[in-house]
Amino acid sequence: MTGSHWIRDAGHFLGPICITNTHSVGIAHHAAVKWMINHYEATFADQHLWAMPVVAETYDGVLNDINGQHLREEHVLNALNNAKSGAVAEGNTGGGTGMICYEFKGGTGTSSRRVDIAGRTFTFGVLVQANHGRRDWLTILGEPVGMELRDHLLFDRERGSIIVIIATDAPLRPDQLNRLARRAGIGISKTGTPGGNSSGDIFLAFSTANNRPLPQLDTALQSSEHLNDEVLDIAYEAVVDATDEAILNAMLAAKDMTTLKPPGHVCKALDAEAVTQILRRAGKAYASLS
Amino acid sequence: MTGSHWIRDAGHFLGPICITNTHSVGIAHHAAVKWMINHYEATFADQHLWAMPVVAETYDGVLNDINGQHLREEHVLNALNNAKSGAVAEGNTGGGTGMICYEFKGGTGTSSRRVDIAGRTFTFGVLVQANHGRRDWLTILGEPVGMELRDHLLFDRERGSIIVIIATDAPLRPDQLNRLARRAGIGISKTGTPGGNSSGDIFLAFSTANNRPLPQLDTALQSSEHLNDEVLDIAYEAVVDATDEAILNAMLAAKDMTTLKPPGHVCKALDAEAVTQILRRAGKAYASLS
Amino acid sequence: MTGSHWIRDAGHFLGPICITNTHSVGIAHHAAVKWMINHYEATFADQHLWAMPVVAETYDGVLNDINGQHLREEHVLNALNNAKSGAVAEGNTGGGTGMICYEFKGGTGTSSRRVDIAGRTFTFGVLVQANHGRRDWLTILGEPVGMELRDHLLFDRERGSIIVIIATDAPLRPDQLNRLARRAGIGISKTGTPGGNSSGDIFLAFSTANNRPLPQLDTALQSSEHLNDEVLDIAYEAVVDATDEAILNAMLAAKDMTTLKPPGHVCKALDAEAVTQILRRAGKAYASLS
Amino acid sequence: MTGSHWIRDAGHFLGPICITNTHSVGIAHHAAVKWMINHYEATFADQHLWAMPVVAETYDGVLNDINGQHLREEHVLNALNNAKSGAVAEGNTGGGTGMICYEFKGGTGTSSRRVDIAGRTFTFGVLVQANHGRRDWLTILGEPVGMELRDHLLFDRERGSIIVIIATDAPLRPDQLNRLARRAGIGISKTGTPGGNSSGDIFLAFSTANNRPLPQLDTALQSSEHLNDEVLDIAYEAVVDATDEAILNAMLAAKDMTTLKPPGHVCKALDAEAVTQILRRAGKAYASLS
Repeated sequence: MTGSHWIRDAGHFLGPICITNTHSVGIAHHAAVKWMINHYEATFADQHLWAMPVVAETYDGVLNDINGQHLREEHVLNALNNAKSGAVAEGNTGGGTGMICYEFKGGTGTSSRRVDIAGRTFTFGVLVQANHGRRDWLTILGEPVGMELRDHLLFDRERGSIIVIIATDAPLRPDQLNRLARRAGIGISKTGTPGGNSSGDIFLAFSTANNRPLPQLDTALQSSEHLNDEVLDIAYEAVVDATDEAILNAMLAAKDMTTLKPPGHVCKALDAEAVTQILRRAGKAYASLS
Repeated sequence: MTGSHWIRDAGHFLGPICITNTHSVGIAHHAAVKWMINHYEATFADQHLWAMPVVAETYDGVLNDINGQHLREEHVLNALNNAKSGAVAEGNTGGGTGMICYEFKGGTGTSSRRVDIAGRTFTFGVLVQANHGRRDWLTILGEPVGMELRDHLLFDRERGSIIVIIATDAPLRPDQLNRLARRAGIGISKTGTPGGNSSGDIFLAFSTANNRPLPQLDTALQSSEHLNDEVLDIAYEAVVDATDEAILNAMLAAKDMTTLKPPGHVCKALDAEAVTQILRRAGKAYASLS
Repeated sequence: MTGSHWIRDAGHFLGPICITNTHSVGIAHHAAVKWMINHYEATFADQHLWAMPVVAETYDGVLNDINGQHLREEHVLNALNNAKSGAVAEGNTGGGTGMICYEFKGGTGTSSRRVDIAGRTFTFGVLVQANHGRRDWLTILGEPVGMELRDHLLFDRERGSIIVIIATDAPLRPDQLNRLARRAGIGISKTGTPGGNSSGDIFLAFSTANNRPLPQLDTALQSSEHLNDEVLDIAYEAVVDATDEAILNAMLAAKDMTTLKPPGHVCKALDAEAVTQILRRAGKAYASLS
Repeated sequence: MTGSHWIRDAGHFLGPICITNTHSVGIAHHAAVKWMINHYEATFADQHLWAMPVVAETYDGVLNDINGQHLREEHVLNALNNAKSGAVAEGNTGGGTGMICYEFKGGTGTSSRRVDIAGRTFTFGVLVQANHGRRDWLTILGEPVGMELRDHLLFDRERGSIIVIIATDAPLRPDQLNRLARRAGIGISKTGTPGGNSSGDIFLAFSTANNRPLPQLDTALQSSEHLNDEVLDIAYEAVVDATDEAILNAMLAAKDMTTLKPPGHVCKALDAEAVTQILRRAGKAYASLS
């Protein structure tokens, strides 16, 4: 994840955040810098802008011709210029197109929770690009679903990874956001993998509270709000649950795809009906997933 | 956890490892240093021994008069001098005596896995001092057991923590052991908490392979064995599973205890029969837990 | 340094800070916990206090019978109960008594800087327990003083370390204090060692600004002040300079001592007059150091 | 520095390493991935290569039209295809072209040390892209040279940074290399800055020892050599000295350049003759620097 050392050192950053495949990090970064130069031009007119966009990646070479480096500058600029608020497309979309998750078709997934803290309501939103896991590990609502759905296996060992972006409007300090980001690892582990990386380098949590104008030299002494650590349990729960659900959403929204390397296998989407049946038998499916 | 900065810097350490309550860390450290001075005396005869024992702690002030600092030097020396191989006592024992886990009686727990890697069999053993969690979070084999067993609740928010010690005879480098230690956080999260800390500061993984004589100045150039990262999935699974099970074992071995502060409540042990029934209903209890 | 994992996680801590030798960490911790229980008793009357004092150490076994563990609880309590504001004793005092620095007599040293930022004046105070370095490395004001003062050498390699505590009244966030603490490593390196550890585990920076009453549950939403990163250059300079000077002060205030292991050597104090002459020749001694 | 999270996790990496300006990171990464795909094609024929090149950056917008993003894919490929062993060009060259160091012209610099450890001779080579510091801080051989050479000042505060790459043939474990990398911060501080970042994220140390063929699945159990920690003092000294010298070499090899933003100032190269005179007066210039 580019830009992470700056975020860790400075405690803040400028958008955008791009998520792509491993071999397109460069062109996404290149285009995002170009976009930032244009977008922030007025703000930085007489000053120096250091454009250090966040670009994160996972590997999609099983389904995509990753070595062809097909992503081009205009694709990224187009995505950034047309980004808008509202529901995020899930499944086989954007960087999520070539993802594989628990040997099912993975992809982009989102989920959020709204929680009341200190008389105010805060939102914790999670976006994942889910590309990890072996089939036997897949767990949904505590059920070892993967052990029962063993068709179309693809791998002999874990090779994947996952990106988790957590956005909130709750006021939190950089060190609190770092702790929040670590909870993504717990949410991932609920889906069954023993290998979720907790280093914080591929999990990013940011808050839109304590937003400041740039350039930052307006005031030497600044004031910030932040939540008391003692009330954060519910925020941690929100992040864990939303991360777990976002991964499931990525899989449920995904569609079958044929593998490229090795060629000709089918990477199946998770069958919502089959999962529902397993959950029902365990007394856990109160409604259909599909 | 005392000694951890040295371990992180040097990549190795000398025993013992002591686990106690928060306010007895000092006396345990004091006694462990004394024990180390005696124990390693011959080895370090003409040299300088830096005794930096590992002493870890969790808080037991709800059940124990922690502010009385009742642990004394002779207790610790006695424990160290009588330590022996074999099964470790679980439940209300040692530092685990005053633990509370998911608002049930917690304690000391252990579990291990033997796995075959590269034609050899390695053991991954886990010891926990489990003192974390709120009742509603408790999850066993994926079942939200805590939601159904809501008698004798004790807390309004999470205040606890957990220590995890992972021992293996598999040859692993310090950076690999660091990754292994992070998997403890995943094992803990399987028991339901959203708050497992992944910092590595209270999880310790060590390997008895690549053991060297002390003092270390025997050779300027040393040789070590280590497993290839590509075969570590199974080691990660072993640590996750054994951590999960060690926490459950701590709870199943524990006995009821009466609280001290606030006084007069009962901290109930987990009822194995009640859990078995819940798991049976979910199709997961193939044998009784008791 | 005990307590550091809590500080890193929570971003705040309760005093005291104790500095002693490696084998007295335990008893210092034990006594400091006792002192905290008494001192904070009223505040925590109906609640639970987790006493996790900061106790740091360096090794003094060359000059002191460290294996005798002569420090007792009453010594520590006496020190804490009689601690007072004002000038700190330097040289062969407290934990600094048995220190060796660049093969000269080391010890406790202090220095501070007052700097104007944003129309206010802030103090950056540094206390060191200096116990590191080989003679040939010793550098003062950029002069390789150690290369010229080669009497009474003691070691064949570096075995020591140094503790640096930085206190300020400047309002800084935890992540900013972490960066400030790393500047201690730069200050140390000005005295000539190539080995200063920058991990932050034995350097502690704290701010008395944004002080809050305990217990912390008073408000769920808190407000803090902090300085803008863009004005911190001068704070970094202050810490670097004060750390450099505190080490020199520790050495200048120290007195000769005879070694215990191996026995009978003299650990000489740095000769201020000799240093002054070297600095004068280099055009750097505008006044006598003695 | 892209690729650093992988290196920290895995303990190894594949070349190349590219160093450029902040807004060309993307295109350098894009091209380096292309180069890696071609270069390692045979090795990975039937397997998956994750190309995660190391691309590091500093900001050159004062001297260069950084927002023009003039670096193109062919420039990078050309550089990689024509890379060869031997002396590295210094000063205004490559990524170093637009660097400013202590408000003098900065750039690319190198230095190395050969040291004998355990009967073998090892090389520690350092390459810097030096772009940091304010004039008043500049220190050479302990002399406050910057305070005396105050013409053509450019800045009102520190805005820069520095990249340090350390290469050695000494066998060291990943955790030892991490410690070695931290010593770069000490070397930098010898040149006078109070702000050297020690996080390890922009310093990279690698060893060519314990080199292995790829793909790595050849053996599940691997053997490595590494030096005993107890003999590393001399390695630390080598890295500190070579880093200090590499920065000086970057400045001495650099040539005057005119600023672009703000336009029309001259960024002067360090005057070797002027420095020599200052050092001579302090008794430190045994030969001319020019």
